Amino acid sequence: MSNPYRKDFPLLNQKERSKPLIYLDNAATTQKPDAVLNAMEEYYKEYNANPYRGLYDISEKATEKYEEARRITAEFIHAKDSAEIIFTRNATESLNLIAYSFGRSFLKEGEEILIPISEHHSNLLPWQQLAREKKAVLNYLYLDESGNLSEEELEAKITEKTRIVAFAYVSNVLGTIYPVKEIVEKAHSVGAVTVVDCAQSIPHYPLDVEALGVDFAVFSGHKMLGPMGIGVLYGKKALLESMPPFLTGGEMIDFVSEQEATFAPLPQKFEAGTPNVGGAIGLMEAIAYIKDTGYDKIKAAEEELTAYALDRLRELSYVTIYGEKYLKENRSGVISFNVEGVHPHDVSSLLDADGVCIRAGHHCAQPLMHYMGVAATCRASFYFYNTKEDIDSFIESLKKVRRWLGIGN
Amino acid sequence: MSNPYRKDFPLLNQKERSKPLIYLDNAATTQKPDAVLNAMEEYYKEYNANPYRGLYDISEKATEKYEEARRITAEFIHAKDSAEIIFTRNATESLNLIAYSFGRSFLKEGEEILIPISEHHSNLLPWQQLAREKKAVLNYLYLDESGNLSEEELEAKITEKTRIVAFAYVSNVLGTIYPVKEIVEKAHSVGAVTVVDCAQSIPHYPLDVEALGVDFAVFSGHKMLGPMGIGVLYGKKALLESMPPFLTGGEMIDFVSEQEATFAPLPQKFEAGTPNVGGAIGLMEAIAYIKDTGYDKIKAAEEELTAYALDRLRELSYVTIYGEKYLKENRSGVISFNVEGVHPHDVSSLLDADGVCIRAGHHCAQPLMHYMGVAATCRASFYFYNTKEDIDSFIESLKKVRRWLGIGN
Repeated sequence: MSNPYRKDFPLLNQKERSKPLIYLDNAATTQKPDAVLNAMEEYYKEYNANPYRGLYDISEKATEKYEEARRITAEFIHAKDSAEIIFTRNATESLNLIAYSFGRSFLKEGEEILIPISEHHSNLLPWQQLAREKKAVLNYLYLDESGNLSEEELEAKITEKTRIVAFAYVSNVLGTIYPVKEIVEKAHSVGAVTVVDCAQSIPHYPLDVEALGVDFAVFSGHKMLGPMGIGVLYGKKALLESMPPFLTGGEMIDFVSEQEATFAPLPQKFEAGTPNVGGAIGLMEAIAYIKDTGYDKIKAAEEELTAYALDRLRELSYVTIYGEKYLKENRSGVISFNVEGVHPHDVSSLLDADGVCIRAGHHCAQPLMHYMGVAATCRASFYFYNTKEDIDSFIESLKKVRRWLGIGN
Repeated sequence: MSNPYRKDFPLLNQKERSKPLIYLDNAATTQKPDAVLNAMEEYYKEYNANPYRGLYDISEKATEKYEEARRITAEFIHAKDSAEIIFTRNATESLNLIAYSFGRSFLKEGEEILIPISEHHSNLLPWQQLAREKKAVLNYLYLDESGNLSEEELEAKITEKTRIVAFAYVSNVLGTIYPVKEIVEKAHSVGAVTVVDCAQSIPHYPLDVEALGVDFAVFSGHKMLGPMGIGVLYGKKALLESMPPFLTGGEMIDFVSEQEATFAPLPQKFEAGTPNVGGAIGLMEAIAYIKDTGYDKIKAAEEELTAYALDRLRELSYVTIYGEKYLKENRSGVISFNVEGVHPHDVSSLLDADGVCIRAGHHCAQPLMHYMGVAATCRASFYFYNTKEDIDSFIESLKKVRRWLGIGN
């Protein structure tokens, strides 16, 4: 393997495995480099303490490191102020926080929430629930024939009634990269607030919240080399300040009496209870790894892998690639496909016999599946630590699927 | 040190420290044994994957281990069914989940929520917010002269209008152990639902939700030897089934269309998004450590330490111990105190110079502070890995505080 990154990922280098590991489910979660695991271990072995209120050495160090993680995260996405970074459990919680706190406070009856039909359930259900509660309207942007959001569709659906436009930077099913800046500008032209789900983009592409002008952005640590249990909500300071708390409890107050409470300033207002310090430290180290590697190198490696995988998949006449016809350039390393005559679950299970890990199902995007007229797809998703050999193994295994089941050639 | 447990805790055994570490802030968070850290490392190095939907080896193993953690947690607290265990981020989120989902659905205008004045903000603010939203009444149980909840107070405050009675098993400030079974029975006699915050009890005392008859119980992993970022909500199955989802997103649905959704059965209904598998595995290992050690041994060790600490503190005429007069028997290893003429923050900072870690402040219990007529206290809290030598160091350092500041003898 000539890939220079693999040596840093212990899971990819296990020797005692009963079968090889060809990990192509990176859109679900990524593997973790030693540096991330070591940073968390160092925290728990050397300075684990409840932060903020401890007036002693290890608690002060835990506080410093937790706040350093916040600053590093802010710089990483070009947020002006680290108080605009709220640590959550995952992107899903970040989206729910926006829907509960911003949505319940500011959305009015009859106003509209607009999302693409391709959204992950995490950026769909909170809005569906909110619309029901507030008697608001949940509208959908449909993809055009090129798999993209057309200008006409945006023009038609963003109206004076639109209050929230929420969308993924990158589709977790098709790999489509959406025109964030254009959508944000159009949304702002009618006074709507924008929520960008960056869970599928930030592992692969830089995020500049300032340049894009987004109001809220969310992502999860575990999809970008970090640990599970830590996520991020970015929000413009004025918006976050205008919003009521979501979860209440310790650390997020100024003053509490029997019947009244005043809340702490940002970011603490939105971080109730003991934070996941170890998780934040792991995320900080993941960011350092991505910065050291460089988004340019990550992107180049993934583009090469994706192009190669698409070429190899096209050789198989019985494979349908979703989005393939149009998404050659502006796509991430996520490929959804089906094998004629074989249920995606069977494809995935059969590939597993060769140690190839892909995902099969609705990918938490049932409305998109319905729109595309399929029940489920297979999905292979790459990261910079994958190799052409991984893709060769994937293709060779895929070639056996129909033979195993006694279909076709 | 004759304590047989310390060798398992790497943080307590660091050699390169610039000063000794006398860790007496266990009510804030506990240190982690090697077994917990190793289990999490093994997960990330050997079978890290997004659980549930992956039809391949490591994802299936991640799912199995995550569900094993749920079963082990259920058995540990004597829940009948592991579907009654919901993994959250921490006890605070568990309490907010109950307030949002159960509270917003079932609490009616004019009904009453009842909590002791000694509650941590995490078991107070969600009810204060809920009462305001639902035009319900938040009532308080006041402590009697013995620092306990008297039968008369319970009798007077639990009325036909009481819908929710929420209370800590053990006070995080005074160490008071509340009569859970009696409160639950009294609450049930008027049809109220009970919410027990076990964050301060489960590290020290067994929890039997069945025997106690509690409706909801919550706790945090990090206060019981586990990692940060994982918490537990126990709820009776019929109650959890009657409640709407709290957070929505991936993994918690059955079917989603553009405008409708049906939700997954328990426990998934309440676990939106990628769960913290590594955290749950760490918690499972923490439970194993507590079981191996034995609650009887933990309790005996702590009672000895607490009695010794109380004796030594009583030697110091300028130290006021809160709750000391009455809570000799039925108390946990939490001691709140003040040093005459010295602000608690200064006490804590000065002790830190000798490596003694205690907490100072309002302990997220401002209404209790107000009720006791103090602005803040110092708090030392013990766990079974502490030693009499730790307490000697604490007392010796405490003796220097007033001298350092030029007060008294």
